Amino acid sequence: MLKYTLTIQISWGHCDPAKIVFYPNYFIWFDQSAHLLFDKAGANMGDLMKQYGVVGLPIVDAHAEFICPSKYGDVIEVTSWISEWRAKTMIVSHEIYNNGQLCVKGTEVRVWAKPHPSNPKRLQAQVIPDSIRACFDL
Amino acid sequence: MLKYTLTIQISWGHCDPAKIVFYPNYFIWFDQSAHLLFDKAGANMGDLMKQYGVVGLPIVDAHAEFICPSKYGDVIEVTSWISEWRAKTMIVSHEIYNNGQLCVKGTEVRVWAKPHPSNPKRLQAQVIPDSIRACFDL
Amino acid sequence: MLKYTLTIQISWGHCDPAKIVFYPNYFIWFDQSAHLLFDKAGANMGDLMKQYGVVGLPIVDAHAEFICPSKYGDVIEVTSWISEWRAKTMIVSHEIYNNGQLCVKGTEVRVWAKPHPSNPKRLQAQVIPDSIRACFDL
Amino acid sequence: MLKYTLTIQISWGHCDPAKIVFYPNYFIWFDQSAHLLFDKAGANMGDLMKQYGVVGLPIVDAHAEFICPSKYGDVIEVTSWISEWRAKTMIVSHEIYNNGQLCVKGTEVRVWAKPHPSNPKRLQAQVIPDSIRACFDL
Repeated sequence: MLKYTLTIQISWGHCDPAKIVFYPNYFIWFDQSAHLLFDKAGANMGDLMKQYGVVGLPIVDAHAEFICPSKYGDVIEVTSWISEWRAKTMIVSHEIYNNGQLCVKGTEVRVWAKPHPSNPKRLQAQVIPDSIRACFDL
Repeated sequence: MLKYTLTIQISWGHCDPAKIVFYPNYFIWFDQSAHLLFDKAGANMGDLMKQYGVVGLPIVDAHAEFICPSKYGDVIEVTSWISEWRAKTMIVSHEIYNNGQLCVKGTEVRVWAKPHPSNPKRLQAQVIPDSIRACFDL
Repeated sequence: MLKYTLTIQISWGHCDPAKIVFYPNYFIWFDQSAHLLFDKAGANMGDLMKQYGVVGLPIVDAHAEFICPSKYGDVIEVTSWISEWRAKTMIVSHEIYNNGQLCVKGTEVRVWAKPHPSNPKRLQAQVIPDSIRACFDL
Repeated sequence: MLKYTLTIQISWGHCDPAKIVFYPNYFIWFDQSAHLLFDKAGANMGDLMKQYGVVGLPIVDAHAEFICPSKYGDVIEVTSWISEWRAKTMIVSHEIYNNGQLCVKGTEVRVWAKPHPSNPKRLQAQVIPDSIRACFDL
């Protein structure tokens, strides 16, 4: 199973007046790491959009548990992998370690979606091609 | 039950190259709306920090379902309330409507926490005072 | 001269560990207020993109002076107007007041730009139509 | 003269509906790179706050010129150095290169400031110690 690890040095602007990471940043890093996982698999999202006509891989569900806080100057590692393939969606799992300790874990459910054929304001989920799944096999 | 509604006009910088809101922004708005709910209850988080010695109300769990996307120029309404009180935590629920349609719903679990008495790097959850809960009764 | 004023309540996530607004947020608010100024003028940027084939109004220069800090819970007012029209660019000026005191002032230079006719990676500045300028006359 | 170079891979969430970097992100990267420059000089800002009683190094002026846009997937390099020392302020200069081409340049003016002795809401600029300047000599 292919995994990607993104290293982040916590900067001043990531932290709030309690001097810990402002939590929406963790979702920004989940998203960054998911994109880089796809890149590593040879399935860059920009390329997928052009090649398959999908609209990125929109999120339908995001969840995180915050086990311990991280602070200015800490270096954290976000490891991401696809933990489950469903017909039209995939679950991207993320774990963040700080100095060897698990501090955040979470999931994103992403959908393989194209513009709706009759309503340009809506999306329509489609079955994920086998060729995409195959990119993530080791 | 006290509720707060925050109105947001989706701006250019909130949106990604798929021309829809970049999803971590929804958690930023959850957090803003939770703070404003506390203000409305007369329990401003800055004041709570000074008065009770808590370190804000750190998030231990955050979840969102994204039902339909919002776009540049849309006006959305984030409504927030405390849906459950536990001994040391509370669940803040959020619903976002766009033009009358439910487009995002989610929860934050927030903990009533003080600095740990012996380890300055850790927090210690404490029982939520009755005086805090009472602020949210109508 | 048409002006727009955007009111912002400083939230937890806008502030850094020094408990004051993290400065890039001021540029986010400059951008939001510029877009809302254009809306007020009847020249919504999304509509301009469709109608004139421009690619938004990209920024070629941004500047801010930070006169005094703002903090969590403060309410600030961002007032924006077009202070100068040049052939292919315009200067959007911004002033931010906090409780009656000028705390930030700045400018954005925005260009009226279309995709370059021969190089899709570049933009080409164009003369701003009189019909656009006329929208901002009172 | 000590320099620091921060490498950034442009991610989905950094870009706006025009598919280019949303410009306030450049100031976020200026700030990150400035902090990392100080770290490299052995003058970590968190340590300075404890050791000298300063309140970070607040920005009093920020400026950027945007020469060409960067897009999703591009890798950029932000190089930062102190271009001028004044009695109580310093100018941090930044240049961003994308694939060998200068695409952004800018400056931050940062002040060596302590809490005002009589007014806790204000800051007071102080003369920068020689020991701080010396950290940046090669």
